[in-house]
Amino acid sequence: MKEAAGRRRQSAAASPCAACKLLRRRCVQGCVFAPHFPAEEPRKFACVHKVFGASNVSKLLQEMAEQHRGDAVRSLVFEADARVRDPVYGCVALISSLHRQIQSLQAQLALSQAHILHLRMRRTAAAHLASGDHITSASASSLSLEVDQTARFY
Amino acid sequence: MKEAAGRRRQSAAASPCAACKLLRRRCVQGCVFAPHFPAEEPRKFACVHKVFGASNVSKLLQEMAEQHRGDAVRSLVFEADARVRDPVYGCVALISSLHRQIQSLQAQLALSQAHILHLRMRRTAAAHLASGDHITSASASSLSLEVDQTARFY
Repeated sequence: MKEAAGRRRQSAAASPCAACKLLRRRCVQGCVFAPHFPAEEPRKFACVHKVFGASNVSKLLQEMAEQHRGDAVRSLVFEADARVRDPVYGCVALISSLHRQIQSLQAQLALSQAHILHLRMRRTAAAHLASGDHITSASASSLSLEVDQTARFY
Repeated sequence: MKEAAGRRRQSAAASPCAACKLLRRRCVQGCVFAPHFPAEEPRKFACVHKVFGASNVSKLLQEMAEQHRGDAVRSLVFEADARVRDPVYGCVALISSLHRQIQSLQAQLALSQAHILHLRMRRTAAAHLASGDHITSASASSLSLEVDQTARFY
């Protein structure tokens, strides 16, 4: 059993990575692609190769410290995958959609905050009436200004 | 004067686009890069060439309808520029930042909505007290449930 497992590991170590397999070259020790493009995931490299080109990816990875290469490969695969799915906009389509989502959330938040201000002002006015306080002309004009500002949201 | 302007136009039309200039090749009529990479903006093509490779970009543009090429070039330039500025994450860094911004806005919105609910409930309770109404046990337990839910946000 142990020998069979050892043989399997040995054969896996000797088999070329997905990049070298696609590029039909010998996967040498220290191959820059091997740690990130295992043979079991051929689509990952095919996608990156189609969009960026193997030579550009290899150059990019070699120019950065080893500890950053995993993250770089993940971001390249993400971008390449988006470009294959949407050749015109790639992952810029997602960026536009996230921008729209942010604008919509900001508008909803402004509306909610205006609503809170409105409810607070009604409460203050009700408290004044209940206690029989006189609203001074200064506080009345400040209240009216706030009401005007709130009204723009409705 | 007219002749000089004519000569300038003729020379501009004959001068290669930024892509053909960088690739040191003749810019033929119908060059796929020429409408999108004018000679006056050499950095735009240099960036796209460095990240995607001229051959990949040419293939991508040729595979799509002409009316989409302008948008495709704009998105490729955007991605390439982001990758040159941040070789590890490229424009995925922006996507992560937008996702974080959305999460923060969603949390603020949930808080605001809980605050609105809280203010409304206080107003309803105050109105009940003022009118001397009896709060039924059913409405009291529903009120208490809502208060519990609201309290989670504070």
